[in-house]
Amino acid sequence: MNKDLLSVLKLVSEGSVNPEQAQELIRGFSDGEEVKIDTDRKNRVGFEEVVYGRGKTVAQLASIAATYAEKGLNLICTGLSEEKIKELEPLCPDCTFAADAGIMKRIVKPIDTKQGSVAVITAGTSDMRTAKEAAEILAFNGVSAKLYADIGVAGIHRFLSYKNEISDADVIIVVAGMEGALPSITGGMFPQPVIAVPTSTGYGTALNGFTALFAMLTSCAAGLTVVNIDNGFGAAMSAIRIINTLNKYRTRQ
Amino acid sequence: MNKDLLSVLKLVSEGSVNPEQAQELIRGFSDGEEVKIDTDRKNRVGFEEVVYGRGKTVAQLASIAATYAEKGLNLICTGLSEEKIKELEPLCPDCTFAADAGIMKRIVKPIDTKQGSVAVITAGTSDMRTAKEAAEILAFNGVSAKLYADIGVAGIHRFLSYKNEISDADVIIVVAGMEGALPSITGGMFPQPVIAVPTSTGYGTALNGFTALFAMLTSCAAGLTVVNIDNGFGAAMSAIRIINTLNKYRTRQ
Amino acid sequence: MNKDLLSVLKLVSEGSVNPEQAQELIRGFSDGEEVKIDTDRKNRVGFEEVVYGRGKTVAQLASIAATYAEKGLNLICTGLSEEKIKELEPLCPDCTFAADAGIMKRIVKPIDTKQGSVAVITAGTSDMRTAKEAAEILAFNGVSAKLYADIGVAGIHRFLSYKNEISDADVIIVVAGMEGALPSITGGMFPQPVIAVPTSTGYGTALNGFTALFAMLTSCAAGLTVVNIDNGFGAAMSAIRIINTLNKYRTRQ
Amino acid sequence: MNKDLLSVLKLVSEGSVNPEQAQELIRGFSDGEEVKIDTDRKNRVGFEEVVYGRGKTVAQLASIAATYAEKGLNLICTGLSEEKIKELEPLCPDCTFAADAGIMKRIVKPIDTKQGSVAVITAGTSDMRTAKEAAEILAFNGVSAKLYADIGVAGIHRFLSYKNEISDADVIIVVAGMEGALPSITGGMFPQPVIAVPTSTGYGTALNGFTALFAMLTSCAAGLTVVNIDNGFGAAMSAIRIINTLNKYRTRQ
Amino acid sequence: MNKDLLSVLKLVSEGSVNPEQAQELIRGFSDGEEVKIDTDRKNRVGFEEVVYGRGKTVAQLASIAATYAEKGLNLICTGLSEEKIKELEPLCPDCTFAADAGIMKRIVKPIDTKQGSVAVITAGTSDMRTAKEAAEILAFNGVSAKLYADIGVAGIHRFLSYKNEISDADVIIVVAGMEGALPSITGGMFPQPVIAVPTSTGYGTALNGFTALFAMLTSCAAGLTVVNIDNGFGAAMSAIRIINTLNKYRTRQ
Amino acid sequence: MNKDLLSVLKLVSEGSVNPEQAQELIRGFSDGEEVKIDTDRKNRVGFEEVVYGRGKTVAQLASIAATYAEKGLNLICTGLSEEKIKELEPLCPDCTFAADAGIMKRIVKPIDTKQGSVAVITAGTSDMRTAKEAAEILAFNGVSAKLYADIGVAGIHRFLSYKNEISDADVIIVVAGMEGALPSITGGMFPQPVIAVPTSTGYGTALNGFTALFAMLTSCAAGLTVVNIDNGFGAAMSAIRIINTLNKYRTRQ
Amino acid sequence: MNKDLLSVLKLVSEGSVNPEQAQELIRGFSDGEEVKIDTDRKNRVGFEEVVYGRGKTVAQLASIAATYAEKGLNLICTGLSEEKIKELEPLCPDCTFAADAGIMKRIVKPIDTKQGSVAVITAGTSDMRTAKEAAEILAFNGVSAKLYADIGVAGIHRFLSYKNEISDADVIIVVAGMEGALPSITGGMFPQPVIAVPTSTGYGTALNGFTALFAMLTSCAAGLTVVNIDNGFGAAMSAIRIINTLNKYRTRQ
Amino acid sequence: MNKDLLSVLKLVSEGSVNPEQAQELIRGFSDGEEVKIDTDRKNRVGFEEVVYGRGKTVAQLASIAATYAEKGLNLICTGLSEEKIKELEPLCPDCTFAADAGIMKRIVKPIDTKQGSVAVITAGTSDMRTAKEAAEILAFNGVSAKLYADIGVAGIHRFLSYKNEISDADVIIVVAGMEGALPSITGGMFPQPVIAVPTSTGYGTALNGFTALFAMLTSCAAGLTVVNIDNGFGAAMSAIRIINTLNKYRTRQ
Repeated sequence: MNKDLLSVLKLVSEGSVNPEQAQELIRGFSDGEEVKIDTDRKNRVGFEEVVYGRGKTVAQLASIAATYAEKGLNLICTGLSEEKIKELEPLCPDCTFAADAGIMKRIVKPIDTKQGSVAVITAGTSDMRTAKEAAEILAFNGVSAKLYADIGVAGIHRFLSYKNEISDADVIIVVAGMEGALPSITGGMFPQPVIAVPTSTGYGTALNGFTALFAMLTSCAAGLTVVNIDNGFGAAMSAIRIINTLNKYRTRQ
Repeated sequence: MNKDLLSVLKLVSEGSVNPEQAQELIRGFSDGEEVKIDTDRKNRVGFEEVVYGRGKTVAQLASIAATYAEKGLNLICTGLSEEKIKELEPLCPDCTFAADAGIMKRIVKPIDTKQGSVAVITAGTSDMRTAKEAAEILAFNGVSAKLYADIGVAGIHRFLSYKNEISDADVIIVVAGMEGALPSITGGMFPQPVIAVPTSTGYGTALNGFTALFAMLTSCAAGLTVVNIDNGFGAAMSAIRIINTLNKYRTRQ
Repeated sequence: MNKDLLSVLKLVSEGSVNPEQAQELIRGFSDGEEVKIDTDRKNRVGFEEVVYGRGKTVAQLASIAATYAEKGLNLICTGLSEEKIKELEPLCPDCTFAADAGIMKRIVKPIDTKQGSVAVITAGTSDMRTAKEAAEILAFNGVSAKLYADIGVAGIHRFLSYKNEISDADVIIVVAGMEGALPSITGGMFPQPVIAVPTSTGYGTALNGFTALFAMLTSCAAGLTVVNIDNGFGAAMSAIRIINTLNKYRTRQ
Repeated sequence: MNKDLLSVLKLVSEGSVNPEQAQELIRGFSDGEEVKIDTDRKNRVGFEEVVYGRGKTVAQLASIAATYAEKGLNLICTGLSEEKIKELEPLCPDCTFAADAGIMKRIVKPIDTKQGSVAVITAGTSDMRTAKEAAEILAFNGVSAKLYADIGVAGIHRFLSYKNEISDADVIIVVAGMEGALPSITGGMFPQPVIAVPTSTGYGTALNGFTALFAMLTSCAAGLTVVNIDNGFGAAMSAIRIINTLNKYRTRQ
Repeated sequence: MNKDLLSVLKLVSEGSVNPEQAQELIRGFSDGEEVKIDTDRKNRVGFEEVVYGRGKTVAQLASIAATYAEKGLNLICTGLSEEKIKELEPLCPDCTFAADAGIMKRIVKPIDTKQGSVAVITAGTSDMRTAKEAAEILAFNGVSAKLYADIGVAGIHRFLSYKNEISDADVIIVVAGMEGALPSITGGMFPQPVIAVPTSTGYGTALNGFTALFAMLTSCAAGLTVVNIDNGFGAAMSAIRIINTLNKYRTRQ
Repeated sequence: MNKDLLSVLKLVSEGSVNPEQAQELIRGFSDGEEVKIDTDRKNRVGFEEVVYGRGKTVAQLASIAATYAEKGLNLICTGLSEEKIKELEPLCPDCTFAADAGIMKRIVKPIDTKQGSVAVITAGTSDMRTAKEAAEILAFNGVSAKLYADIGVAGIHRFLSYKNEISDADVIIVVAGMEGALPSITGGMFPQPVIAVPTSTGYGTALNGFTALFAMLTSCAAGLTVVNIDNGFGAAMSAIRIINTLNKYRTRQ
Repeated sequence: MNKDLLSVLKLVSEGSVNPEQAQELIRGFSDGEEVKIDTDRKNRVGFEEVVYGRGKTVAQLASIAATYAEKGLNLICTGLSEEKIKELEPLCPDCTFAADAGIMKRIVKPIDTKQGSVAVITAGTSDMRTAKEAAEILAFNGVSAKLYADIGVAGIHRFLSYKNEISDADVIIVVAGMEGALPSITGGMFPQPVIAVPTSTGYGTALNGFTALFAMLTSCAAGLTVVNIDNGFGAAMSAIRIINTLNKYRTRQ
Repeated sequence: MNKDLLSVLKLVSEGSVNPEQAQELIRGFSDGEEVKIDTDRKNRVGFEEVVYGRGKTVAQLASIAATYAEKGLNLICTGLSEEKIKELEPLCPDCTFAADAGIMKRIVKPIDTKQGSVAVITAGTSDMRTAKEAAEILAFNGVSAKLYADIGVAGIHRFLSYKNEISDADVIIVVAGMEGALPSITGGMFPQPVIAVPTSTGYGTALNGFTALFAMLTSCAAGLTVVNIDNGFGAAMSAIRIINTLNKYRTRQ
């Protein structure tokens, strides 16, 4: 629950919140017909809900965006195809779109900048969409990220060239498709938490990203963790969980 | 490399290390015929090599254990079946065995205790082997863990009963087979890093753990990361990467 | 057979049915070239045939609709894509379309309302199409349904908020994609028959609904039953089988 | 929770239950180290916990059996291989074993007989183990079942021969391996709830039961529901959910 | 080889065939750059080459059709999508198209009618495309076929209604999608060779026809044989192999 | 039904068959508790039931063998492992065993020899078990077969060496594992019906026979039909269906 | 590294290369934001980078082409769909396109012709796109190739007809879809290195090329090697590795 | 054929070979009942037949070994489990066994040593069995190999340490399980032909070697070729094809 029960009831009795708002505060979610926004999520787990755009129709997305605007919430929506973005642009004129990351957003409340940094590495140019999705989600949550593109294992000297820079990050996100070998190299070389993101880059035996996924999960480098295929969002969120935990100790200093 | 080149060469010239030892120090690995121990690993990534027991023959394992003894290194070996343990016991009389975790170990150097704690949760009794593997690996690396067994979603009140205790941990490892739903619940309730470990518990559509694995990877709870099926070892190692990073900030205080 | 043989033959001899109609009554199906309507189905199993729209061409569907119209039968057709609906609308001007459920229908005979109620729950907004298909099929068969949308496990307090309402239903249908965890929670909390419907919501390891399907089949909650992916139709039909059986006992009172 | 809080606390203050027992009553589960028995389950969902035997070691099973004995609970445990049964017999001398159903049980409290009947049909002789598991679970819950063995579609006249008998049951469970066609025939002929159980009978393209599973889920007969491969237990439990719901209406008469 | 070597060489020396034609006769194939027509096939295996349309571009198909025209060969080409047919129609104005069977053809030499008959049965209306492909191929080879549409197992009385007619055929082809149960029923009821054709009708666990394929291969009815998914062509060709063999004995009479 | 109803009833009234026997004659199957022998099968489809040995326990098999002995029926049982054969030998002392074909049999009634011949070809020595199963089933049904072993495509001259002999057969069965290429060669060279049997020979990408199965189903040689992996039985049965149909014409001569 | 460090630094100090160019020479790659061209590759492995076109957007490809033009490098880009080629043509007016091979290229520096020859064989006309991709890549690297189209195993006499010609090549590339049998025949007949390329030709059990892939990997002909599905590029590159190694010995003569 | 026809016939007429031997020479294979040894293979493709041990029974293997002994041929047999080796040792007392490579052999004719060298690299100790199989096959064919064990990517400095040595080989075989990343690194660093061998080392998502296989096939390093899982034999054979081709040019010098 967002607020303790008694204080909410006092606000109702004072007339400063109406019963509908009070219900939402007590329940911890807004009660739309097709959507229930989890307004308690930040309180519980440290970050707000991100709208999953893939399975929803344009009509549903526009309606959700309107609800967020109405409630004065920051909005970020992932997984939007070029077609959906084209249809959404006229419907959501106050939103901005990062088409190369499949993202729609609208920032109405300032974002608190957090300490801590994330390095986002890609094996190839084709993996950039996923890397940019991660970077957008990190930025939405106040975390700064640096991208290192196209430094995969076919020419490993490219990767080694950035070794010192990468070693300064608190968390490393490695995005790779095809055989997904770059996280193994990264995990064998750096002590930080390494979050591996398989992508659907490749064809035939790349299996739309499953080969990279399985390779990362069975990596000979110890202590990698893995998220779903093309899931830049998920990698960013798990980095945020780590950063938030790190900052508990930083802020105690 | 373990040591800088010049200081090693000085030790050789002084006669305090012989050329073979010096080669190992410079190369960062010991040069066995079938095994190359990565003696530089702790220096690079913050933890020592763990012996992977599944793919090796009993003869190979006994020989590796002997090499570790010779070099005065702490040994931990995972993934041992009951049959292999029975064959290894007489061959490695100075090792101890945790049969219910599939582990052989020999501690010859004291282990540094680390700050930071890990909660290891299992959905069912059948998931304990994997949870214990994680706990053993954490202990081997000086990290304390607390186990919460058999609190899966068929009776979710069992899980809720331990909510406060679990919320004190720095990292949460959730071990579940069958439909693998417990990490979703956990990730929706706690802000910490959550590492999900699918197990091969179940039959038919449990697909030897692949259903739990895929469910965890496609969880609606944001920011979970996942390791291989039955991979208590990997979950522990990624927890250690996080704990080590946390402790960089703790120790700066 | 719809009617007993002798009574049909009497009707023929009286001239009140012609030989073609009699053949259909005796055989229990209408003899079209590409379609044989199972006119005996309601008599046998308690509900009429539903037209499966996915595998048929628009031409076949329009022809089937015409045949139903000719015979004075209520028509409901499922699994229609937006494209097919657009092509069918001018061809079947007396039909109504529920585009968000993929359904075309034409009610020419009044539907008998049945006692008994069904709760249809969805984990997310993306699962609504399947839930609405189920609701349409239930309504076509005279059964009332109530929908509870977007109350999945990432914020389980949303689900708990509707616990009392749901417990009044005779049968619970739970529609979920991604990791498909909601039926496990539901089955662990309610004593009624729970029919789980996996959906193709999700990407990558969601495997177009197979992960949810397998998760539901291997649920740790006992006594769930499962239907095909996105099969709102099938869930509704099995609910109707249960409701029909319940009503045998209700009507005996 | 099994009992309301205040009445439990009164019992403690009277000394008629000790604090450990009270904790279990309030929490709704017993707190073993590796096992938490869900003592509240019957209260919540209408049936008691069944011990899942496949993933547990013989030591764990014997210990669970001892705990059940201590608490005076009826015990039934499924999924036991011949080898496990041989090892369990001396450890649990007061249990009985149904080796052809993979079951161990001990009845210490009389079982309430329920109204309602279930027909359990098998396509072949090789499917009997699963059918017997279902029958044992039904009996454990007070529901009577009748078995019809080896009446599959290669000689459909065998099935037709029992049509009248089967039509008297409240629920039909159909157990079939190989191509899994029998549930389609059954569903096309009877109006009752039909629960299809695929079995791992067959080889090659039978895919250890997945072909039967998938066939049943994509059956052209409407309103079948399906459980996991070889899951006689699950079929019985879903039949019990239906029977329990039916009996709410019967008992109101 | 089409003709014996010496007789071909004589024709060359007489000037009645030119060297290019002679080469083709000797080699048994025509030597196009991208296509080698197997002109010896009928001689070897009893039927002529059928053009496989799926993997070829429209340009390749038009060029092949032109070559056939030039050589005075009957042409039949399968597996053509609606789009390809639309593009081919203007390019091959002297061909006819059976769009509902995906076929283009041009008959320039009369077809010898063969003794023997084939029954082609479909489980549903959605399976008609494949059944018609089979019928077209049979007709191209002079074999007569009779189609029985939409008589699948959800209403088995429809199938039984045609039992006597079907029993007159020399070979039975059964076309079914979804769970693919109809061949099992057919094989259990008729003594003839039964060729089962799975189709991609269905969704989800129908697995684009693989469930029907696997079900047919693991049928409990003995002696079914099976061809590839949607492969009406293959079923027809194997029927022709049987009919040709039958006719060896008929013609000996 | 084996006999027409009235004649059976006369026999009962005469006392020459008892009511139990009469029931079996009328129903067309024997009514055992776990087994219903399909005594009508030969009448319906031209061959008797073969006992499927894989999924049955030794106890069930011994009991079935006893029932066949009692009823004076010829028995053949397939799919027996070496272990099962060792256990069955003492229990069925009057049966003979073909261990290299996995078969148990007992011939008590003379077998009618049929006209027609089958060539059974294997690609390698490892495919002989399946080929011998086919030969045993053919012999049990009075059909003579000739085996050609180890003539696969790695040395295609071995196959070509037997071309003339093979071309005399009415039906060709080709047994091959690994890449399963031999049926393509055979189908491209011979006009007869070709039944392809994939075997589980091979490892890794041989996928326990699925690669050979899929290769055969997608063969570029037209008109092959295919049976399940290692299914020598099924190949033989479909050959028998063809031979029986051929013999209808032969016997008319 | 392309050049030794000191010589590069001298060039900088002389002003003949600027610092940005020097950085690229020392690092061995060009530092674009989304693309790092591996300028050291030819030096290391004997061939230059080929641009992988499938996963990249048209914008990325046009930008890469511009960079190559700027740096005066020969460009070849594979895996371009017809749609992409249409969009690229106006953006890259100085490039040439081989649409039937999916290739864009621009040759600005003359290509060194290499000794050695490659035979590229296809089983069917549908495999030509992949064969042409291989031929284009070979030509780009100065290796001459000869194509033999449509000589698959359904009419093996076509293949045998070219046996002598093929035996002159240094390396044989065999391109085949469907059941992928042609490499087995080739490998059993020729002593050269045979590189098998599975294609996605076929449908149903062709599994988009996986059946051909698996068949080739499990071929009974010894010493075949295999590349990814439709990977004409990869086959050509491995032929080039072999040709380059051969030429080390030729040039020593 | 091994010898030209006329010379063989002369030897028969002279009495120096008997008709059975002559038949074998002319046909190019020996005519055993279950085995046809391809005595022409060396003549055709440059190496002799290797006996595939996996799918054969001990009896078949002993019989083959006896036939080889009788004919005075060198024998090598691969893929033997420990159990088979134990059973074969007494039956083939004149053979030697390499149990850690799964090999039985008997050398009766001296082996010609060939020029050319192969480097065999393994990622881990668990991959040694496959590497040793390759080395044994190379040795059997007169090719020398050098093994580099346990130098995988988790500690890439181990691999780099042997870079110079490896670069001297004519062909590189890389053996790796789990994520199979080592061939990508190797292919990106060396210009030689690289043959990648996936192994079944690993568990869960290692998929018994399929993940490594798929990763190698979709490697971002150009020009790798791949063989079946655990197929050290196949890798060696393809190396021999390359070495034989190289030696054609060496010997011309």
